[in-house]
Amino acid sequence: MTVHTSTTADLYPTRVSGPGTVFDRKDPVVYGSEADGPMAAVVLRGYEDKGYLTIDQLITPQEVAQLKEELARLSADPKIREDERTVIETKSAEVRSIFEIHRVSDVFARIANDPRVVDRARQLLGSDVYIHQSRVNFKPGFEGKEFSWHSDFETWHAEDGLPRMRTVSISISLTDNYSYNGPLMIMPGSHHKYISVSGETPADNYQKSLVMQGAGTPDKATLTRFADEYGIDVLEGEAGGAVMFDCNCMHASNGNVTPYPRSNVFIVFNSVENTAVEPFSAPGPRPSFIGARDFTPAG
Amino acid sequence: MTVHTSTTADLYPTRVSGPGTVFDRKDPVVYGSEADGPMAAVVLRGYEDKGYLTIDQLITPQEVAQLKEELARLSADPKIREDERTVIETKSAEVRSIFEIHRVSDVFARIANDPRVVDRARQLLGSDVYIHQSRVNFKPGFEGKEFSWHSDFETWHAEDGLPRMRTVSISISLTDNYSYNGPLMIMPGSHHKYISVSGETPADNYQKSLVMQGAGTPDKATLTRFADEYGIDVLEGEAGGAVMFDCNCMHASNGNVTPYPRSNVFIVFNSVENTAVEPFSAPGPRPSFIGARDFTPAG
Repeated sequence: MTVHTSTTADLYPTRVSGPGTVFDRKDPVVYGSEADGPMAAVVLRGYEDKGYLTIDQLITPQEVAQLKEELARLSADPKIREDERTVIETKSAEVRSIFEIHRVSDVFARIANDPRVVDRARQLLGSDVYIHQSRVNFKPGFEGKEFSWHSDFETWHAEDGLPRMRTVSISISLTDNYSYNGPLMIMPGSHHKYISVSGETPADNYQKSLVMQGAGTPDKATLTRFADEYGIDVLEGEAGGAVMFDCNCMHASNGNVTPYPRSNVFIVFNSVENTAVEPFSAPGPRPSFIGARDFTPAG
Repeated sequence: MTVHTSTTADLYPTRVSGPGTVFDRKDPVVYGSEADGPMAAVVLRGYEDKGYLTIDQLITPQEVAQLKEELARLSADPKIREDERTVIETKSAEVRSIFEIHRVSDVFARIANDPRVVDRARQLLGSDVYIHQSRVNFKPGFEGKEFSWHSDFETWHAEDGLPRMRTVSISISLTDNYSYNGPLMIMPGSHHKYISVSGETPADNYQKSLVMQGAGTPDKATLTRFADEYGIDVLEGEAGGAVMFDCNCMHASNGNVTPYPRSNVFIVFNSVENTAVEPFSAPGPRPSFIGARDFTPAG
């Protein structure tokens, strides 16, 4: 049985009782044009085709240093460590993620509302945008954990109630990304297809999925077919660079046994014309620090 | 307390009670010359410097197919699955490794004794060689496990009693190695230094270390220093290619969430002038299917 608690038409059914299926995306990828923002038509076309774009140096080395310092300060703050928005690894007692970072920290709020970031999101989505989710991540060296293949939209639709695909993520690197320290991997072009996933959403799925993946993972046969068809791009790049990727990109990252940690700021912009309704396939919405219910425009 | 059960002088003490130390290698890397085998002087010099060399196509696609077929046959054979030399993953019930593969299978015995393989090992080690260990490995897609940084020699010295560094491994790929499916990573040049590791060897260490790593892992500070100094080479390459690497190379591999499995034949050749004595830092030697006690020359 699939749980449908939303009254908005469900264009992307998932967590279904039968086997999963694959169908075409029913929404545009790029909503704006060259005239709407800082990025050239050729960049927008690349994003349309591959589902992502990279920016070599979005922020300066000084800004990177400032954000890393702020992350270190927050990670050591007892109040932050107690906060429900903070994910701490049990074994090492190290902070792994802080959610809603644009509300937790003024320093991170500034970068999340910076025109270099928000103008690009507006251009891609063709409207004002608001922050659906934000977090800062710290993936240590030697024991960095992997993340299996998934589409973020599948989760945001099923569990947060985003109706359509009109959402973009930006990941700003605070450390260098090498092929060998667990960088982001994307199947370029996979955002044109939607994978409707088999299986119901457990009631407390989000709590588990903060530390390990729960529902919403496509089956191995479909992932193998996708990898054969689209290939796998490994996103290397220096600290201060960024990746913007479509909400429906199939992406993952490997673990990391090298000594080089990875840290990034992750901000999800959703169009104000696509605000969250009730979840499409979950008993209730996730907490607002994971899927925002405040749709005030960013920037 | 360090366990010394060998009467041969211990040039490479390890598993010591105090903190680990780093010192210079006391043995040559290349023992032969261009005149001794198939490889040119420039190839030998590269191996001397970096501690490894690659061969783009050592065996033909037909041979790769034949070896994969043989691996599939062995993995399905109930007698092989029961054999103590076979490592089976509990969860999936899949065969991960078969040790002493050159005795288990005629097909693998042929490749382990093939002149393309043995002549190169002889040339590097400057003498006849015998097989200290052999195995075939199957690392699945989606859930391929990582292997932390280590020097094989450290283990072979401590637990198997190899006195000096005069040992070379060859890994022949039966599948393509991409940067993203958990390929071999080597710190080039690290074989010139020896890391004496802290901590005693538990009595049953080998049984644990077949599935996960036990004693013999260098500390994080030393590994970070090594990575900064030597860098990390990621060894991509097609099926049928091979890597030969010195016994004292610091190497590792990341896990693999991609759909692409990895399979290889791994054969360790030791010089007949460096045969195993009693272990230098372990209560007793490992079983002979892991560390050979039969020193009959290969080829």
